[in-house]
Amino acid sequence: MAKIAVIHGPNLNLLGTREPEIYGTMTLTDIDDALRTAAGADHELRSFQSNHEGALVDFIHQAREWADGILINPGAFTHYSYALRDAIAGVKLPTVEVHLSNVHAREPFRHTSVIAPVCVGQISGFGWRSYLLGLRGLLDHLADRG
Amino acid sequence: MAKIAVIHGPNLNLLGTREPEIYGTMTLTDIDDALRTAAGADHELRSFQSNHEGALVDFIHQAREWADGILINPGAFTHYSYALRDAIAGVKLPTVEVHLSNVHAREPFRHTSVIAPVCVGQISGFGWRSYLLGLRGLLDHLADRG
Amino acid sequence: MAKIAVIHGPNLNLLGTREPEIYGTMTLTDIDDALRTAAGADHELRSFQSNHEGALVDFIHQAREWADGILINPGAFTHYSYALRDAIAGVKLPTVEVHLSNVHAREPFRHTSVIAPVCVGQISGFGWRSYLLGLRGLLDHLADRG
Amino acid sequence: MAKIAVIHGPNLNLLGTREPEIYGTMTLTDIDDALRTAAGADHELRSFQSNHEGALVDFIHQAREWADGILINPGAFTHYSYALRDAIAGVKLPTVEVHLSNVHAREPFRHTSVIAPVCVGQISGFGWRSYLLGLRGLLDHLADRG
Amino acid sequence: MAKIAVIHGPNLNLLGTREPEIYGTMTLTDIDDALRTAAGADHELRSFQSNHEGALVDFIHQAREWADGILINPGAFTHYSYALRDAIAGVKLPTVEVHLSNVHAREPFRHTSVIAPVCVGQISGFGWRSYLLGLRGLLDHLADRG
Amino acid sequence: MAKIAVIHGPNLNLLGTREPEIYGTMTLTDIDDALRTAAGADHELRSFQSNHEGALVDFIHQAREWADGILINPGAFTHYSYALRDAIAGVKLPTVEVHLSNVHAREPFRHTSVIAPVCVGQISGFGWRSYLLGLRGLLDHLADRG
Amino acid sequence: MAKIAVIHGPNLNLLGTREPEIYGTMTLTDIDDALRTAAGADHELRSFQSNHEGALVDFIHQAREWADGILINPGAFTHYSYALRDAIAGVKLPTVEVHLSNVHAREPFRHTSVIAPVCVGQISGFGWRSYLLGLRGLLDHLADRG
Amino acid sequence: MAKIAVIHGPNLNLLGTREPEIYGTMTLTDIDDALRTAAGADHELRSFQSNHEGALVDFIHQAREWADGILINPGAFTHYSYALRDAIAGVKLPTVEVHLSNVHAREPFRHTSVIAPVCVGQISGFGWRSYLLGLRGLLDHLADRG
Amino acid sequence: MAKIAVIHGPNLNLLGTREPEIYGTMTLTDIDDALRTAAGADHELRSFQSNHEGALVDFIHQAREWADGILINPGAFTHYSYALRDAIAGVKLPTVEVHLSNVHAREPFRHTSVIAPVCVGQISGFGWRSYLLGLRGLLDHLADRG
Amino acid sequence: MAKIAVIHGPNLNLLGTREPEIYGTMTLTDIDDALRTAAGADHELRSFQSNHEGALVDFIHQAREWADGILINPGAFTHYSYALRDAIAGVKLPTVEVHLSNVHAREPFRHTSVIAPVCVGQISGFGWRSYLLGLRGLLDHLADRG
Amino acid sequence: MAKIAVIHGPNLNLLGTREPEIYGTMTLTDIDDALRTAAGADHELRSFQSNHEGALVDFIHQAREWADGILINPGAFTHYSYALRDAIAGVKLPTVEVHLSNVHAREPFRHTSVIAPVCVGQISGFGWRSYLLGLRGLLDHLADRG
Amino acid sequence: MAKIAVIHGPNLNLLGTREPEIYGTMTLTDIDDALRTAAGADHELRSFQSNHEGALVDFIHQAREWADGILINPGAFTHYSYALRDAIAGVKLPTVEVHLSNVHAREPFRHTSVIAPVCVGQISGFGWRSYLLGLRGLLDHLADRG
Repeated sequence: MAKIAVIHGPNLNLLGTREPEIYGTMTLTDIDDALRTAAGADHELRSFQSNHEGALVDFIHQAREWADGILINPGAFTHYSYALRDAIAGVKLPTVEVHLSNVHAREPFRHTSVIAPVCVGQISGFGWRSYLLGLRGLLDHLADRG
Repeated sequence: MAKIAVIHGPNLNLLGTREPEIYGTMTLTDIDDALRTAAGADHELRSFQSNHEGALVDFIHQAREWADGILINPGAFTHYSYALRDAIAGVKLPTVEVHLSNVHAREPFRHTSVIAPVCVGQISGFGWRSYLLGLRGLLDHLADRG
Repeated sequence: MAKIAVIHGPNLNLLGTREPEIYGTMTLTDIDDALRTAAGADHELRSFQSNHEGALVDFIHQAREWADGILINPGAFTHYSYALRDAIAGVKLPTVEVHLSNVHAREPFRHTSVIAPVCVGQISGFGWRSYLLGLRGLLDHLADRG
Repeated sequence: MAKIAVIHGPNLNLLGTREPEIYGTMTLTDIDDALRTAAGADHELRSFQSNHEGALVDFIHQAREWADGILINPGAFTHYSYALRDAIAGVKLPTVEVHLSNVHAREPFRHTSVIAPVCVGQISGFGWRSYLLGLRGLLDHLADRG
Repeated sequence: MAKIAVIHGPNLNLLGTREPEIYGTMTLTDIDDALRTAAGADHELRSFQSNHEGALVDFIHQAREWADGILINPGAFTHYSYALRDAIAGVKLPTVEVHLSNVHAREPFRHTSVIAPVCVGQISGFGWRSYLLGLRGLLDHLADRG
Repeated sequence: MAKIAVIHGPNLNLLGTREPEIYGTMTLTDIDDALRTAAGADHELRSFQSNHEGALVDFIHQAREWADGILINPGAFTHYSYALRDAIAGVKLPTVEVHLSNVHAREPFRHTSVIAPVCVGQISGFGWRSYLLGLRGLLDHLADRG
Repeated sequence: MAKIAVIHGPNLNLLGTREPEIYGTMTLTDIDDALRTAAGADHELRSFQSNHEGALVDFIHQAREWADGILINPGAFTHYSYALRDAIAGVKLPTVEVHLSNVHAREPFRHTSVIAPVCVGQISGFGWRSYLLGLRGLLDHLADRG
Repeated sequence: MAKIAVIHGPNLNLLGTREPEIYGTMTLTDIDDALRTAAGADHELRSFQSNHEGALVDFIHQAREWADGILINPGAFTHYSYALRDAIAGVKLPTVEVHLSNVHAREPFRHTSVIAPVCVGQISGFGWRSYLLGLRGLLDHLADRG
Repeated sequence: MAKIAVIHGPNLNLLGTREPEIYGTMTLTDIDDALRTAAGADHELRSFQSNHEGALVDFIHQAREWADGILINPGAFTHYSYALRDAIAGVKLPTVEVHLSNVHAREPFRHTSVIAPVCVGQISGFGWRSYLLGLRGLLDHLADRG
Repeated sequence: MAKIAVIHGPNLNLLGTREPEIYGTMTLTDIDDALRTAAGADHELRSFQSNHEGALVDFIHQAREWADGILINPGAFTHYSYALRDAIAGVKLPTVEVHLSNVHAREPFRHTSVIAPVCVGQISGFGWRSYLLGLRGLLDHLADRG
Repeated sequence: MAKIAVIHGPNLNLLGTREPEIYGTMTLTDIDDALRTAAGADHELRSFQSNHEGALVDFIHQAREWADGILINPGAFTHYSYALRDAIAGVKLPTVEVHLSNVHAREPFRHTSVIAPVCVGQISGFGWRSYLLGLRGLLDHLADRG
Repeated sequence: MAKIAVIHGPNLNLLGTREPEIYGTMTLTDIDDALRTAAGADHELRSFQSNHEGALVDFIHQAREWADGILINPGAFTHYSYALRDAIAGVKLPTVEVHLSNVHAREPFRHTSVIAPVCVGQISGFGWRSYLLGLRGLLDHLADRG
């Protein structure tokens, strides 16, 4: 059984209403529910959303106490939050970065992730299913490590 | 009648005391008062200042519930807060960006705004009056849209 | 009473017909009339449009003889006319730069102004009202200087 | 039922022997088998590997005749093959890009994909499971489109 | 007697456990204790750690009321927090920037400090002793200014 | 029958004498004659040369009244005249850009055209025949549009 | 009489079906026929299309044995195939580069041609007629050289 | 005896009044007089000032009919007027570029001259005496060439 | 005794005829003969030339079965073929990169090798003798490794 | 007891007279005296100043014979002397880099140190006291290593 | 009477023999003689040539004791010797930079001078006469300062 | 018989002791001996090592009097010494540049040689044997020139 910290970055609380042509119509609660369904009884998930970089860093620090891995959509912090990057590197928990949209096909500033270099992998472009794929990738990664 | 969210970014609480040769001697309260006077009884203004990026994002999200437009001086966040940019783009409220100083005449890093591309327009260089001009521009813009 | 030189750069004579989805339907004469109305009897405005960089420089030089300030929409010259920049710096008249469209949200070459560093301030994105806001900002600036 | 073209780019035929510390010990045949198992009887997969850019382009063109989507690991072509990009854009088949390693954490030249902008999404860093995740993402994407 | 605000930026609360091969085994409390010992009875130190950029800005603003100088390890904010920079410039307190590791020998993004240009000086690479050296440098600087 | 504005930019009046090893020995009159011969009785051509950017912009504006398309060799303005670019975009006449020399094989600054993005197409390297090819391309383009 | 090698680069075999809004509805056979019609009995044309860079290089080498000039649409190879460039420079046959679309008005990576510096000239933006114009330009160039 | 075209670029008509701390107190007439005195009876000088790039180009073209060399202060055109550069290259008259101020010690955009590569030499920083030195350098250069 | 794969990249089959002022008059057969003479009876050499990147990659893969080292002149692939680079890194055979001309003294794009970082060393500028020197360097390297 | 090589780079012999507003009024002898006082009887210091890069490299080489560590102010060599860098890396003595002024707050070229990546740490901005702090940091570092 | 330090940088001792097509046939002694003749009895000149950066810095330092100004051709040090720059800035002697060739028309690395920003002015392109013009400019500058 | 100047740049005197994992265990004397052995009685070699750029330039100048060619390992000067480059270009002796390590596989600053463009060729990566290969290449080059 694995314990996973599911972290949603800034503006993701707007999901389902914000620019649905880019981000889809699922709300964050919908996504969390879908993740729990996918994880089943075998795994424990704790979700957290914040628009505050510092709150995300705090949550990552606390995850060190209980979690086996992190599933994170850093939102706009993807592109500049070296604090988030250092937090992930600091707690040394396997982390998977996900994005709803295909960030590589949007504005140039979204092509660069300062987070990805300290992650296991990155998934982008599958809408809310990016989370599902990320969860699966993370769980398999953890299982591999035994 | 329009409802306007007036948002002051980081360090603007120091106004009137911080580097007055650049930013002038008006305090933030003075500016809010001047804005309310200018808006008159016809419009409602709610001001908010924070040094916390996340608090500004939260406030913008809430503004979606009650405001018709946003008047924002993003302060230093102008130059790197993609989270703020996504918040503004997400709530889809017409937004005007203002700056006290002429940012285009200062250090190179101040020449670039990551916020401006999702705004109606940008005003800089008129001291506290940048706010007044911005308010007028925003109200006229809202009136045009009927 | 202030005397203001109102300067329209290249292609602005096409206003009202050229790409109205970007620049609006007001003609240059409409804008000049609106500016005069706004200025009222208290101020004198003299307008000048040219597609010739040299003619604009000449006009700025002559403005030194009679004007108290300059309101300028440098059009495409914004992005490369160091001659215009030097003219403004040379006559030492307070100058406000205005743009109809939000230049910061268009092609990258329009994000840079070689004029702005020698101006009081810059206003962009409010259509023909950018001029009105600019005039007000300039008149207030002049009044401040006594 | 969906028909998927599975495409392996240059040097992937070495899988299982080449730099296993980076790419793992699964051979390409192992991966193709795993993909078929995952796809089950419901979907048809046809795999193709080549070190020849032109052969990959040809295969993509032919896929237009029979496939519903493309799952591709472009290998080193990720970083410079605009021909591959144009092929994918030309056949207009939904395409998912996968990478075994976390390309965003390796040499700088591997951070840029000229393929991703014409894809549905990108997955990297999960070893051979990147393919499995990509297949699932692609099948779901196709199902969504009905 | 001098009063010094000692500020620790994001992730420094992990000290002693996070990547000890880079950051050493001293905890933040250990460092604060060492600083107080070094300062002796002659000087007053107040320490503050936060992962929240805004909280650090707030603390710097308050320091204006009581402190004579600032000793700061901005952590990852070193590289992008123009808000922190503006806060330091705004309160006009002499500030010394310290880093545990030799930032100039690590990833390229760590070579640039947006904070240093508004500081008295910068010290990096001496582990927890960077703080001690910084404190001494700051106290001497304050003594010089009389 | 189509009416074509043929526009020659700065220094092209020197043709036939200026650096013939690069630009050939045909004079501008020779080229205009050759164009008229090629156009035959079916089409009307009006030629204009100026070394004044503003005069070229004026001529383009006037062409809006009578011309169906523009054939232009912008000379050195190719590389920096955003005013010319805006003029062409503003009058919305189909425009073909031609160059005598192969600009892509000369100094780096000649590799970039700020004009081409608002044109139908670009032809370079065929000496005076670039004009003939450009005329043909333009006339066919106009014919296609009916 | 001239013998011309007509070379079509990658993905051009899709012509008539691929992104017709960019590339038009003519097939490659249609274009070859139109070129032969234009060349008439006076000239011999041999066409070749391949998605394989190496096959194009081979064909260019062989052309040295029989051709007087090359008409080439390098497709995506335009932007990175230094091998193609060296092949053209190596056989020393006069070469004209053509593009269906106006590459200078598309994505930035399409603005640079590594092929053009070793060509007589470049033509872009006239759809299938770019080939016709290129053929004419090439034949005239060859005639000039006697 | 040599005939020299003395050319003053944009804003130089303001000399003696414009930013004297940078450009000195000599007027353009003073400089022309000083040049004539220096040239003595042996040489003929004809001066021309314009703020119009096109007028300067025209004057250079005409100089081809009568002048042996050009002494030019291109003012702000130094930094972007490729038209001026092509004019000088086209008339093939030996040209010396002079600047009143030390352009290499001012804003970065003033460090680059697009004119200098087609000149004999460049002199900057000696105030009005830059012209005198330039005249001498030019006359000696002409004498050398016999 | 060592077995060496000698690989010639694109356009090298033209050697002896192509641009002899740059590449010399030796044909590829001449070079292969010279290499065999130099290697003597002690070593086995197998040569391969192709203009196809994929064929070169295939050959490198096969070399893993029989060769002890690789001597390669990647031609134009030097500057962009990450596929070739990955092939060399993948087979882990000691590889020496050679160039006939001094690539560091030619066009800027030839100054960068994407191949060199995975090679033992690089030799350029000695004409056909670069191969001889490279062979010797490679054989000595292999001998050192025992 | 530790033996420290104290190295002063180019122009530091001018200290006390050169630009005192930047570098202070202490002479080099004063600084050396202060360092010796600080080191006390426990440590041996040998100072060396030279304006010759080669002499500094020689001195560093010799230090390998007797010194335990290096305290260096590389002056302007900080920004380009890779020879100095290689010397420090070559002798493998722990080295601390110090600067009198805050180099990070001056001209952009002073923001980059090619020396720092091979040092223990860097200290800048404390005037002559940068040396004292650097000495202490170095001695503590040596003590740590036992 | 003025005392001038005439400084010749690296490789200038080769003058008259080295690349005469670029640097002319005058030897350094010839130039020194010509300078003395030009200076006449009124001024004292002391010349110094060295290929050693440190020796040039030493000489500049000593010049502070006796010279009123410096005439320097820094040769290749122009482009990277910040030590030389700091020496000139440190001794605060008015300095004129001269170059034999027109550095602005040669390789890109020669377009940038790290010395010029601390000089009175720069003269290039007049062969050995650049020195004469520089001497005159320097003497006039000194005379102006009284 | 040829006379060869063998030049060793900065820090190469440390060879055999400095970072042997990069540079090997041969001393400079060993290398000089090996070179003399390889040259045999037929050729004369004179070796010179210095950490002083100026001394290397002086030695190159003197070599003009007696040497037929230069074999140089410029060490760190490779990357910035334009003085060395000008010296080599000035004496016009055929020069071969060698490096012990594969500079193209190390830090980015080592990828660029300012020396190579004025050399016959460059050899890197073969340890002390780079010298042997370079000597052979140089001798063959000299023999070719007769």
